[in-house]
Amino acid sequence: MAAPVNRLREIWAAGRPAANAWLSLPGLLNAEVVVKGGWDSVTVDLQHGMAEPVEMLRMLAPIHAAGAVPMVRVPWNDPAAVMRALDAGALGVICPMIETGEEAAAFVANCLYPPKGKRSWGPLRANLMWGPGYSDAANDIVVPWAMVETSKAMANLDAILATPGLGGIYIGPSDLSISHGFKPGLDRQEPEMLERIETILATATAKGLPVGIQCATPDYARGMAERGMRLLTIGNDAGFLQAGATAAVQAFRT
Amino acid sequence: MAAPVNRLREIWAAGRPAANAWLSLPGLLNAEVVVKGGWDSVTVDLQHGMAEPVEMLRMLAPIHAAGAVPMVRVPWNDPAAVMRALDAGALGVICPMIETGEEAAAFVANCLYPPKGKRSWGPLRANLMWGPGYSDAANDIVVPWAMVETSKAMANLDAILATPGLGGIYIGPSDLSISHGFKPGLDRQEPEMLERIETILATATAKGLPVGIQCATPDYARGMAERGMRLLTIGNDAGFLQAGATAAVQAFRT
Amino acid sequence: MAAPVNRLREIWAAGRPAANAWLSLPGLLNAEVVVKGGWDSVTVDLQHGMAEPVEMLRMLAPIHAAGAVPMVRVPWNDPAAVMRALDAGALGVICPMIETGEEAAAFVANCLYPPKGKRSWGPLRANLMWGPGYSDAANDIVVPWAMVETSKAMANLDAILATPGLGGIYIGPSDLSISHGFKPGLDRQEPEMLERIETILATATAKGLPVGIQCATPDYARGMAERGMRLLTIGNDAGFLQAGATAAVQAFRT
Amino acid sequence: MAAPVNRLREIWAAGRPAANAWLSLPGLLNAEVVVKGGWDSVTVDLQHGMAEPVEMLRMLAPIHAAGAVPMVRVPWNDPAAVMRALDAGALGVICPMIETGEEAAAFVANCLYPPKGKRSWGPLRANLMWGPGYSDAANDIVVPWAMVETSKAMANLDAILATPGLGGIYIGPSDLSISHGFKPGLDRQEPEMLERIETILATATAKGLPVGIQCATPDYARGMAERGMRLLTIGNDAGFLQAGATAAVQAFRT
Amino acid sequence: MAAPVNRLREIWAAGRPAANAWLSLPGLLNAEVVVKGGWDSVTVDLQHGMAEPVEMLRMLAPIHAAGAVPMVRVPWNDPAAVMRALDAGALGVICPMIETGEEAAAFVANCLYPPKGKRSWGPLRANLMWGPGYSDAANDIVVPWAMVETSKAMANLDAILATPGLGGIYIGPSDLSISHGFKPGLDRQEPEMLERIETILATATAKGLPVGIQCATPDYARGMAERGMRLLTIGNDAGFLQAGATAAVQAFRT
Amino acid sequence: MAAPVNRLREIWAAGRPAANAWLSLPGLLNAEVVVKGGWDSVTVDLQHGMAEPVEMLRMLAPIHAAGAVPMVRVPWNDPAAVMRALDAGALGVICPMIETGEEAAAFVANCLYPPKGKRSWGPLRANLMWGPGYSDAANDIVVPWAMVETSKAMANLDAILATPGLGGIYIGPSDLSISHGFKPGLDRQEPEMLERIETILATATAKGLPVGIQCATPDYARGMAERGMRLLTIGNDAGFLQAGATAAVQAFRT
Ligand SMILES: [Mg+2]
Ligand SMILES: [Mg+2]
Ligand SMILES: [Mg+2]
Ligand SMILES: [Mg+2]
Ligand SMILES: [Mg+2]
Ligand SMILES: [Mg+2]
Repeated sequence: MAAPVNRLREIWAAGRPAANAWLSLPGLLNAEVVVKGGWDSVTVDLQHGMAEPVEMLRMLAPIHAAGAVPMVRVPWNDPAAVMRALDAGALGVICPMIETGEEAAAFVANCLYPPKGKRSWGPLRANLMWGPGYSDAANDIVVPWAMVETSKAMANLDAILATPGLGGIYIGPSDLSISHGFKPGLDRQEPEMLERIETILATATAKGLPVGIQCATPDYARGMAERGMRLLTIGNDAGFLQAGATAAVQAFRT
Repeated sequence: MAAPVNRLREIWAAGRPAANAWLSLPGLLNAEVVVKGGWDSVTVDLQHGMAEPVEMLRMLAPIHAAGAVPMVRVPWNDPAAVMRALDAGALGVICPMIETGEEAAAFVANCLYPPKGKRSWGPLRANLMWGPGYSDAANDIVVPWAMVETSKAMANLDAILATPGLGGIYIGPSDLSISHGFKPGLDRQEPEMLERIETILATATAKGLPVGIQCATPDYARGMAERGMRLLTIGNDAGFLQAGATAAVQAFRT
Repeated sequence: MAAPVNRLREIWAAGRPAANAWLSLPGLLNAEVVVKGGWDSVTVDLQHGMAEPVEMLRMLAPIHAAGAVPMVRVPWNDPAAVMRALDAGALGVICPMIETGEEAAAFVANCLYPPKGKRSWGPLRANLMWGPGYSDAANDIVVPWAMVETSKAMANLDAILATPGLGGIYIGPSDLSISHGFKPGLDRQEPEMLERIETILATATAKGLPVGIQCATPDYARGMAERGMRLLTIGNDAGFLQAGATAAVQAFRT
Repeated sequence: MAAPVNRLREIWAAGRPAANAWLSLPGLLNAEVVVKGGWDSVTVDLQHGMAEPVEMLRMLAPIHAAGAVPMVRVPWNDPAAVMRALDAGALGVICPMIETGEEAAAFVANCLYPPKGKRSWGPLRANLMWGPGYSDAANDIVVPWAMVETSKAMANLDAILATPGLGGIYIGPSDLSISHGFKPGLDRQEPEMLERIETILATATAKGLPVGIQCATPDYARGMAERGMRLLTIGNDAGFLQAGATAAVQAFRT
Repeated sequence: MAAPVNRLREIWAAGRPAANAWLSLPGLLNAEVVVKGGWDSVTVDLQHGMAEPVEMLRMLAPIHAAGAVPMVRVPWNDPAAVMRALDAGALGVICPMIETGEEAAAFVANCLYPPKGKRSWGPLRANLMWGPGYSDAANDIVVPWAMVETSKAMANLDAILATPGLGGIYIGPSDLSISHGFKPGLDRQEPEMLERIETILATATAKGLPVGIQCATPDYARGMAERGMRLLTIGNDAGFLQAGATAAVQAFRT
Repeated sequence: MAAPVNRLREIWAAGRPAANAWLSLPGLLNAEVVVKGGWDSVTVDLQHGMAEPVEMLRMLAPIHAAGAVPMVRVPWNDPAAVMRALDAGALGVICPMIETGEEAAAFVANCLYPPKGKRSWGPLRANLMWGPGYSDAANDIVVPWAMVETSKAMANLDAILATPGLGGIYIGPSDLSISHGFKPGLDRQEPEMLERIETILATATAKGLPVGIQCATPDYARGMAERGMRLLTIGNDAGFLQAGATAAVQAFRT
C-alpha cells in the first residue's frame, strides 16, 4: 500500500490553485452533499461553524471517501483541539487568531510529532482513514495553517512566517477588517485592505508558503488565485442553503 | 391567550397559494437557515428525507419560532408515526402512498381526537408549542394530507376524497410517474401526467379540499398555483445546497 | 449468580402496591435524577413522551442500576417496538390502545419466547443488564401490560383478559375519558368514569391480574391503591419540572 | 461513470462464498474498525442489534467507503423500515421472521421500484453513495433476503421461494431452534437442526437463490460454505469485543 | 426591523430585578418546559451542568423563542468557550472563577468585537436568532458576567470591577464559601458570608454594575433582590425535578 | 449509607495490582460489554480515544454500575476538562503530558476542593452516582494521575513527584519512546526504555505513589505488575474489536 499523500500539495505542484469548501453547519449529510460539488478540500469549521467535535468526526469520513482533503478549523490555538482534529483524520488544520511567532510555534508544535513538534501519539482514527502508512507520513502530509487576521499579526508577520514546519497562511478578511477599523465582510475591495492582503500573500509566497483566503464569490476567488493564492475558500454551506431557499420562494412569489 | 390557528388556512382564505419548504437533511441549523427564506410552511420529510424522529423534534421548534407552519411527512401510514409528529407540534401531516378509502380513513383517524378520530391523548410538546388552547383546537388546526401518487390511488380517488376529516391532497409526481410507466422526476410535462395531475386537482377542489404538489422549480410551482394548487413545495434543502456548492466550484474553475 | 427476578412481583406478593415513575422527557440525566426518588419502577414513555428508542437505551441503564424495575410504554402494538424495548432490558412493556382479544394476543406473543409466544431471539443488552440467567428467566420476568383506554376495549374486556400470558392491565384515564365523551385528564372523579375504572379493576383482579393506572397526584394514587390497584403512576418528570419552575418564579415575584 | 454493481453477486459468480460481518452495537467507529478486517459485506442489525436508524445512516458510509457491501437487517417486515434502509444506501436488506409467501411478497415489493414492486421514489442518500446510475440500477443491485427461521416458515418454504424478485434466503439458527423446541444458539449440531438447514439450503439453491446463515465461528461458517452457503456471517462486534476484553483480563490475572 | 435589545437591561431600567432560571441538565425539552415558568432569563450551565455545547445550541433556541434572555455559563475563562456561546446566540455569558483584573479583562475582550475587545467575527447562528441587526448591536447587548467566588477574587475586587466593558458580577456562594473555610451550599446565613456578599454587592453597585447571585429558594432570592441584587437565580431544573419526584413517591407511601 | 470509597485503593491495600480497561471508541454499549470482562477500573480516553464528553457521561454510568472504578483520561491539562470528568463521576483522572512540577500542581489543584486545591463546587452527577457522602469524601477518593511520557518530564520527575495531593504516575510508552528518538509503540523491550520505565517506577514507589502503565498484552502487563506497577492497562476496545474481526474473516478464508 502506497504511503498516504496530501493531495493539495500535488495540486500546487501542478501549478493549480485549490478550491476549498467550507462547512459551517453540523451534519454528515450536509458534508456528503457539498463534497459532491468537486472540491479539492473541504474544511469543517469548529470556530464559527456550528458543528462540535462529535460531529466533525462524522463529517470527515465522507469528505475523505469522496477524495477531497479533509481539513478542520479549530476553535482556538489549543493543543487538545488541534490534536483531536488530527487524530480524527484531518490533513490540514487552520488555526484562528495567530498573532505572534510564539503562538505560531506552539500551534505548529501541536501538529507535528517529535522531534519536529510535540504532538502526542495515538492516531487511531487517522490510521483507519489513511492506513498504516499514516504513522510514518504524518509529519509530511499534515499542513498547519496559521490564520493572519489582526493588525497585531501583521506586525508580527515575519516572526510568524519564520516558524519551522508552518504549512501555510490563511487570511480571514472579516477579522482582518474589523481589526483595522472596517466593517466585517469578505471579498474586500478597499485599497487599504487589498494592500494588506497583498502584503501577506507576497511575504508568505516569498518564503515558499501557500496562502489561502476566505471568499464569498467565485469571481473574487478567481481573482485571488490569479494573484497567487493557493487555497481559495468559496462561500459556505449555510450561504448556499440560504441563497437557494430564499431565491426559490421569492421567484415563486414574484 | 388566543386559540391557536393554522396559518395555512388563513392564507387560503385570503385566496393565496402557500409556499412550502421541504427539508430532506437532518439538522436544527438547516431548518433555522431555510425557514428564514420566508416560507409559509416547512415540511420535515421523514420518508425519503434523512432526518429521524429524534431530529424532527428539534427541527419543528425553529420552524414554529420563525412563524412558518410546521409540517411532517411521515414515513408511512402508521399510527405511531402520525401521532408522534402531531405530539411533537406539527400542524400538518403528509402521509405517503394512500391508495384506498380505507387507508385514508385510517390515516385521518390517527390525526383527530375522538369522537372524530382515534388519536391518543398526550400532546405534551404540542401544548408547549401552541399553548394551553391546543387541546380544544387540535381537531380544527391539524391538517391531514393524503398523498395520491399511484395508479391504484387514482382509481380510488373518489373514495379517498370522501374521507371525513381529510384536510388536503398532496401529489407526489415521481411515484405517480413510475406507477404509470414513466421515469421518476418532478415538474412533469407529459400530457398524460399533466392530465392526471389536473384530474386530482379538479376532483379534490370540487370537494373543497386544498391540493399540494412537490415541484422542482419556482416556475413550475407558479404555474401549478395558477391552476389552483394551494400548497406548492419548491425544491428542497439538499437541492439548494448541492446546486450552490456545485455552481461555486464550477464558476471558480471556469 | 441467582436468576433475575421482576421485583414488582415480589412487591405484590408482599401485599404492597408499587409506585411507578413516568418519564416523558428524553434524557439520561433526567432518569438518573427521578429514580433517586425511591420508585419501585420507572417507565420510559415512547408513546406520548418525547424520548426516542435511541434515548430509551440510555435511560433504562440508570433505572436498573438504581434498583427500580425498568419499563417502557411502546408507541403502538408493533412487534418491532415491543421486542426492541425488551431487548434493551425492559422487564415491563405497556402497550397503548389494546381494544380486542386479538390485539392483546398479538401483543403478548411479541413479549414471550416460543413456545409461549413469538418473540425473536437476540437479547444482547438484556443479557448485559440481567446476566446470563436472563435467557431462561425471560418469559417469567417480563410483564406485558395491555392498556384498556377506549369504549371498544371495555366492550372486549373479557376477551382481552382471557389472553394467556398477559401480565397486567394498565388504565389510561385521558383516552378512556375522551373515548366516552368526557374531556381528557387524569384523576377522574365523575361517577361514570369511576365506575368504568372499578369495572376494569374488579374484572382483572378476579382473573388474578394486577391493574395499574396513570395518576396526577399522590392522593388519588393512594386512593386507587386502597381500592386494589397494584401499579400506581404518580405524575411525571415534565410535570415535576414545570411545577417547580413555575412555583419558584411566582414565589419570587409575589 | 460505470453503473453501480452489488459486489456480492460478482463474488458468487466467481464461485466464492461471501464473508459477512455483523454489527450489533451502535457506532460509526465500530463500523470503521470492523470493516478493516476485510469482509465482503457488513450488516448493520437494526433488529436485535442496538443501533437505531439514526446511527445506521452513519455506519453505512464507512462500510461503503471501505469497499464492503453495506447491508441492513430491518427490525421487522415493515415498509418504512425497509425503504429507509435502501434510501440510506444499503444494497441488501435482511428481513426477519418471514413466514408465508404473502409476507415474502410484501417484503420484496417494498425493496423494488415499479413495475416490479412498490418501493417509493426518493433515493437521496443512495444517489450520493452510489452515484447517479443508482436510479436505473437499483432493482438489479438491491438484494432482498428473507429470513427463514420458524417452523411455519419451513412449512411455507416453497411459497416463500416462489416469490418473484426475492434475492436470497437467510437462516436464523437461534429462532429456528426455539421454534422447534431447542435452546437458542448458533452453530447447531443437532441432526434435526442440520437437516432443516440442509432442506432450506437445498431447496433455495435449486431455485437459484443464494443462502446465508448466522454463524458463531469461522469453522462452522467454512463448513456451511462447503455445503453451498453463499453468505456466511461470522461472529459479531459485541462478541469480538467481549471475548477480547475478557481474555485480556483473565490472562493477566492467571 | 428594530435593532435587537437585551431585555434584562430594560427590566433593570424599569427598576425591577430579573428572575433567572438555571439549567443543569441537558435537553431541549427540559429547556422548553422550564422557560414556560415565566423567567426573565434562562442560563444553560456548561460548567457544573451536564449539558455539552452540542446541546447548548439546541437549548438556546426555545429560550429565545419563549421571550427569555438566553445566557450561558461557560466552563472556564477560555476564548473558544466564550465565543462559541456568543456565536450560538447567548446574550449573556457568565464566567466562573474570575480572580484578577487580568482574567476579567481577558474574559471581557473575548465577549466584545474590536475595537472594544478581541471577539472573532462569525455570528452565523446569532444572526439567525437576532436578525441582521445583531452585527451592529452585539457589543451593546452582550453582557459579560464575571463570577466572584473566591477569596483571591475578593482581594482583587476593585481591579475586577475596573474592567472596561464588564457587564455584571455574579456571585457563586458555594465556591465563595469553601474558599473561606465554610461548607459548600447556597442561601448562606453566616454573618461572615453575608458580609462578603454585601461587600461585593455594594462595591459593584457603586460602579454601576448589576450583581447576580445563585439562590436555592425564592425567599432568599427575594431578600437579595431587596438588598439590590439585579439577577436572581432561583433553584435549578435538577432540583425541581428531584424535589417533585421525591415528594410524589413519599406522599404516596405515607 | 456508607461513605464512598475508591476501590482501587482497597485493591492496592490488599497488595494486588489493578487491571484497567481502556475505552478508545465512543459508545455506551461498548462500555457495557467491556466492563463485563471483570476489570478493576475502566478508563474512558478523551485524549486519543474518539469519545467526546457528551459520550463520556453516558459511558461512566455502566462502568460504575458494574462495580469497576470509572476513570477518564482528559485531553489536556485543562481545568474545564478535569473538573468536567470529576463532576460526571470519575474517581480517577489521567492527565497527559505533565512535564513540570508546576503543571502537576495545576492539575492536582483542579482535582481537589479547597483548601487542598481549586476545584469548583457543583458535583451534581457525582452526587447522583456516589450518593450524598460524595461531597465530604471527594478529596479522599479522587485519584489524580500525572502522565510521565516525555524526556522533559523525566528531567523534572522529582518536582512532579513532590506535588502534594498527586495520586499516581501513569506511563505512556509511545510518547515516552518518540520523545527519546524511538518509534512509537507499547510493551517496550529496549534496555534504554526499560531503564526509564524502571526509574519512574522506583522513584514514584519510593514516594508512596502507585504507578500505572499502558500495555498491549497481558504478558507484558503481568511482568510490569511483578516489578511493582499497580495499574495495568491491557489493550483497548478498538484493539479487541479489530483483532477479533480480522481473525474471524481470516480463519474463514484460510
Ligand atoms: Mg476570523
Ligand atoms: Mg412519493
Ligand atoms: Mg392513552
Ligand atoms: Mg432471528
Ligand atoms: Mg462556582
Ligand atoms: Mg501519550
